Amino acid sequence: MRPAETVLSQGSFLHLDTGEFALAAADAGFDALAVWRQAPGYRGARATANAAAQAGIRVDTLCRGGFLDRAGHEETLRAIGEAAELGAGVLVVIAGPPRPADPRAAGADLHAALDLALPAAERAGVVIALEPFHPVLAADRSWLVTLAQAVDVAEEFDSPHVGLAVDSYHLWWDPRLAAGLRRAGHRIAAVQLADWVVPEPGRLPPRGLPGEGAIPLGDFVKLTREAGYEGALEIEVLGDRVRSLPPLEAARSLKTALDHTAVGAEEGTHA
Amino acid sequence: MRPAETVLSQGSFLHLDTGEFALAAADAGFDALAVWRQAPGYRGARATANAAAQAGIRVDTLCRGGFLDRAGHEETLRAIGEAAELGAGVLVVIAGPPRPADPRAAGADLHAALDLALPAAERAGVVIALEPFHPVLAADRSWLVTLAQAVDVAEEFDSPHVGLAVDSYHLWWDPRLAAGLRRAGHRIAAVQLADWVVPEPGRLPPRGLPGEGAIPLGDFVKLTREAGYEGALEIEVLGDRVRSLPPLEAARSLKTALDHTAVGAEEGTHA
Repeated sequence: MRPAETVLSQGSFLHLDTGEFALAAADAGFDALAVWRQAPGYRGARATANAAAQAGIRVDTLCRGGFLDRAGHEETLRAIGEAAELGAGVLVVIAGPPRPADPRAAGADLHAALDLALPAAERAGVVIALEPFHPVLAADRSWLVTLAQAVDVAEEFDSPHVGLAVDSYHLWWDPRLAAGLRRAGHRIAAVQLADWVVPEPGRLPPRGLPGEGAIPLGDFVKLTREAGYEGALEIEVLGDRVRSLPPLEAARSLKTALDHTAVGAEEGTHA
Repeated sequence: MRPAETVLSQGSFLHLDTGEFALAAADAGFDALAVWRQAPGYRGARATANAAAQAGIRVDTLCRGGFLDRAGHEETLRAIGEAAELGAGVLVVIAGPPRPADPRAAGADLHAALDLALPAAERAGVVIALEPFHPVLAADRSWLVTLAQAVDVAEEFDSPHVGLAVDSYHLWWDPRLAAGLRRAGHRIAAVQLADWVVPEPGRLPPRGLPGEGAIPLGDFVKLTREAGYEGALEIEVLGDRVRSLPPLEAARSLKTALDHTAVGAEEGTHA
């Protein structure tokens, strides 16, 4: 199997403008960017596309099309348009709202929202990738908190333009992870990697670089490969883990950790 | 259906000695105690039994028999003996360790540990109640983080002395909760209630009194009733939520919240 392309998430670089982020990623050897629409430094699709072109790096993924529901349809269309303008093949979306009064109605609304957005995604050549969150976020971020739920939704669509974003931090705890990733199969459209750092008491576990925490990330990547995913591997260490470093040094440390994980996955170790 | 008996967890009163805790619980109108072996104020089974008798309240549950595995067998036997001496019908146990290198081996070890402890539990008339934890605790507390996993383990034993402790804080997020509780059925041996309070960023969600957070606790209780559970309802608001109050006032506020939840469950509301 050819080595995976590597993608750097803007989520580690919210303190930089997008041009600085793109340069650091390119200089550190990443193949592509995961751009954040919600980043303070995001100046829209055209400016971002120019910044990436100047840095000599492509955009793989756009995060994110808001909390996907019918009420947010116009916003979803805008995000699909931006993804297309950026040349990003994947738009990550989250199911909203958190804590719906009626979970069944929320599921129906999500289905309807995807159904509405699908023609635009097909025209734009963009995969809408639904991302399940960690159960710790069920009350304040998203009601969709297991891989099985997300696969259930994706399977309702017989389209290569509805996919899944699988994030190690959100999914690693699941005793049904391996079965879920097998079931997700060719619907996996993005693989996002961060480690789960055991926190101080009372703190939410922060994201860490691969190797800093509890997740056997090599195994996680290997499971996505065995499920048929051949796309890029994104490192998405949200938070201020690398904020104190100069941008290039931060990007290099993330690249090294990601490369190490990818090698671990190829070798079948628990790295 | 007769009103459920009410149980107060020592987990809200770790700053008190067991005698003060027992008196506050009895004075506030609770029917029984959930005693914590790990409480700083725990002075052993005999002293605790005397304190409960003096307060005029029984002990329903003993928390907890350590992290259950074969290596901890002697500790489990001690905990079963203490539960019997306290007249507690239920001993809550947690599956250990967190993050086992080989989850399958951990499952086999848990099965073996239960198998070893079962004769003593049967002789003592104590139900060993396995408690699944929240997935946010998978890296530092227990590998057993879904109700489905816990039911899988309990179903391996055809004995009324292997049961389940279902805690709203740990389980509420699960999209398969209703199905899981139905499946748990008569194996439910303890129902523990606390709300999930949406936290400040970066904090682990603290436990709250019923009504303070995100969980429809009336529905949770109703699901356990529909599954066939007729035992006591325990309020287990760990942490320092009521620590600043005088003990009796704290116990009364917990009793009021628990009664309100129980009424909500009977009425089928989302209270």
